[in-house]
Amino acid sequence: MAIPKSRQMHLAAFCGQPGNHIASWRHPLAATNAILDPSFYQNVAQIAERGLFDLVFLADILALTEPRSAEQQTIWEVPFRIDPLTVLPVMAAATERVGLAATASTSYNEPFNIARRFGLLDHLSRGRIGWNIVTTASEPEARNFEATQKLSHNERYARATEFVEVTKKLWDSWSDDALIADKDSGAYADRTKIRTIDHVGTYFNVRGPLNLPRSPQGRPVLFQAGTSRAGREFAARTADAVFLAAQTREEAAAVSSAIRAIARQNGRTDDSIRFLPGVLVFIGRTTEEARRKQDELNGLLGENAGTALLTELLNIDLSGFPPDCPFPELDLSAVTGIQSRYRLLKDMADRDNLTLRQVTQRVASGAGHRIVVGDPRAVADQLEDWFVSGAVDGYTLMFPYLPGSLAEFVELVVPVLQERGLFRTVYEGHTLRDHLGLERPARA
Amino acid sequence: MAIPKSRQMHLAAFCGQPGNHIASWRHPLAATNAILDPSFYQNVAQIAERGLFDLVFLADILALTEPRSAEQQTIWEVPFRIDPLTVLPVMAAATERVGLAATASTSYNEPFNIARRFGLLDHLSRGRIGWNIVTTASEPEARNFEATQKLSHNERYARATEFVEVTKKLWDSWSDDALIADKDSGAYADRTKIRTIDHVGTYFNVRGPLNLPRSPQGRPVLFQAGTSRAGREFAARTADAVFLAAQTREEAAAVSSAIRAIARQNGRTDDSIRFLPGVLVFIGRTTEEARRKQDELNGLLGENAGTALLTELLNIDLSGFPPDCPFPELDLSAVTGIQSRYRLLKDMADRDNLTLRQVTQRVASGAGHRIVVGDPRAVADQLEDWFVSGAVDGYTLMFPYLPGSLAEFVELVVPVLQERGLFRTVYEGHTLRDHLGLERPARA
Repeated sequence: MAIPKSRQMHLAAFCGQPGNHIASWRHPLAATNAILDPSFYQNVAQIAERGLFDLVFLADILALTEPRSAEQQTIWEVPFRIDPLTVLPVMAAATERVGLAATASTSYNEPFNIARRFGLLDHLSRGRIGWNIVTTASEPEARNFEATQKLSHNERYARATEFVEVTKKLWDSWSDDALIADKDSGAYADRTKIRTIDHVGTYFNVRGPLNLPRSPQGRPVLFQAGTSRAGREFAARTADAVFLAAQTREEAAAVSSAIRAIARQNGRTDDSIRFLPGVLVFIGRTTEEARRKQDELNGLLGENAGTALLTELLNIDLSGFPPDCPFPELDLSAVTGIQSRYRLLKDMADRDNLTLRQVTQRVASGAGHRIVVGDPRAVADQLEDWFVSGAVDGYTLMFPYLPGSLAEFVELVVPVLQERGLFRTVYEGHTLRDHLGLERPARA
Repeated sequence: MAIPKSRQMHLAAFCGQPGNHIASWRHPLAATNAILDPSFYQNVAQIAERGLFDLVFLADILALTEPRSAEQQTIWEVPFRIDPLTVLPVMAAATERVGLAATASTSYNEPFNIARRFGLLDHLSRGRIGWNIVTTASEPEARNFEATQKLSHNERYARATEFVEVTKKLWDSWSDDALIADKDSGAYADRTKIRTIDHVGTYFNVRGPLNLPRSPQGRPVLFQAGTSRAGREFAARTADAVFLAAQTREEAAAVSSAIRAIARQNGRTDDSIRFLPGVLVFIGRTTEEARRKQDELNGLLGENAGTALLTELLNIDLSGFPPDCPFPELDLSAVTGIQSRYRLLKDMADRDNLTLRQVTQRVASGAGHRIVVGDPRAVADQLEDWFVSGAVDGYTLMFPYLPGSLAEFVELVVPVLQERGLFRTVYEGHTLRDHLGLERPARA
């Protein structure tokens, strides 16, 4: 059966540092000491491009990951992520076609700076940039900025909404044909095609215009990941593409349907948002080899290494619970942490009857995202299943270690998806919007 | 006469876009349409490295340069600068030894973000990064952020002082040996060697630690350019190197002596600060050819193109003055613009008996910095003169257009300086601090 091109899978490669498992850095082939070296990011981007991925994605955390227990003298995991906006330019300069998306916070940045940096990156990459909009929930992150200005869950989304509104106005402040740059006449730009934005709002007063011509994509692609109620509202109104964490096809379908329903109420079409849930993949030539690889990596996870991440992820101190108790029901009214993530973990624990320790192990692997283990055809089967059902538009692939596991996926799984007509065999467009099948937005 | 190595000249290459003259972009060989392309920045950095420059420097402006006259429909100059922190990573990845410095504002950024970006760049470049600290004076820039929070001249410096204090604390939050990254034992970092900073101040509350290991230089090199009274105080206490604008050797010597005197009062040695005044160079095989090149570029300057920059530079509306009147005495009490820059221009105008139009032309060339015109030996003579007198430690070289004029300087003038023993013939160190002869700071 011929699958229409618009229904081919979209794939993002999550650039963990150096993988998406807490023990990734201990893998013998992981580029552990290279995560502060530009070549690591160049390699990952080039391999993803060889595999015709839609994009490479970088997450962010604005604080050191700290275990809450005062006794712990040794840190057992990579306790930081590097600033994604600093390595995206390196990846852009080393590639020609693959898209590149970075996380940046609306709570601890200024819209003028963010509009300018993503706009410039869109120029430098000739239209391959995306912005993953986050509101930055955690207490340790808030404390690295204005501790006194900690925003509530709803205030964070209110600020994010205004932030993105200002950013879009800035990206649209130059018309596409305002830049002339005619050496002969000496006219550099047409001032009548550049306007101030004169934004006066609750959180921001920004005059504009942006000090940069409109970028190749008009506006960089907007990604979003929050699936709390406010997060879904925000995504439905704002996002071109949504990252999500879902353990089952039904969960994924429920999230995408819910967001699409709100989007329709806001006048958007179903085809205007891409849903790309995270999947951590363990690939072997046989299922047994794949399982062995998974066990190997879990075996490198120390006894205490996972708990810190779970505590960090949920913004709740879990040290009072014994590791082998059932995953606890928690009262979330006291925290402004990531509520949707807690719900996901709790549902998974109830469904699969997991203890706190077992949830911790799952969280250590892809931070609670779906895990797929098998030979190349089995992995492709599982990716095909959700996709063909219409629940999702593709995946954000997470890897046991980088750059090796990504190269393996490109070599072993991509050809299977291509054989089945599920994935492109060549880049047909040039921009990230082209790859994702999204319209270039006209200047509003 | 053998000149001790410590008295060799330090050279920074100012990466204008695409030059340091308002008409640079119109030069037939200028990379006008490439200033939004990574290859422009790679080329400039690689040519500077071939010439053994200490560093390449990028300035910044956080607003569109706008003519104040409402009638003007055409913009005659490049009205923006690209975000320097976005192209520095590209330059770092394309080079091995040359230093790289970028401007960033203490008024419109957060110290945690800035410490993290410059720290990461110092890792990615293996110790070649500098930060030019600016407080961002102009009204149009303020309006792109919190218009209501416009800071006075003194408040800006008070905020900058605290900002840099926080940034240094963050850079020092990891000891140099805190990172272990031992795959075998699973110990990634020694928590006892990482500390919170718990900063509580007037402008910032920052807990820390930084989510990044201490960088190769310990702390990136700190540059400063303000020469107002508050600016000099700040530089004397903070800067490793000072950019300045001076038309005469005596002016340069006066500024450097004044700052060194305050530095001594703060317990710093004379050898702990480098003074690198800006110089725009026009080089020809003969003096006549050099003059012709200068005239050519000035000839590309339209009638109105200069005034906008002067207005922008001084933050004062000059449209009421006839172009051929003597450069006016202005009352600065009403503005929080760049006071030191006005004084410099006024002194130059009085000394050389210049009209407003003539000052405008000089400002169009290197924004009011010294201009040196001649054959390679004459240019070297003029650079040698100030340097040998002890007034300065080197120069921030500005170019008529890029990358061509930089390549010309590397080919024609660098060998003359080397013959005279005034400039290195090889990079002896690896970090920017090595090049500048500055100590690596111990963790405070």
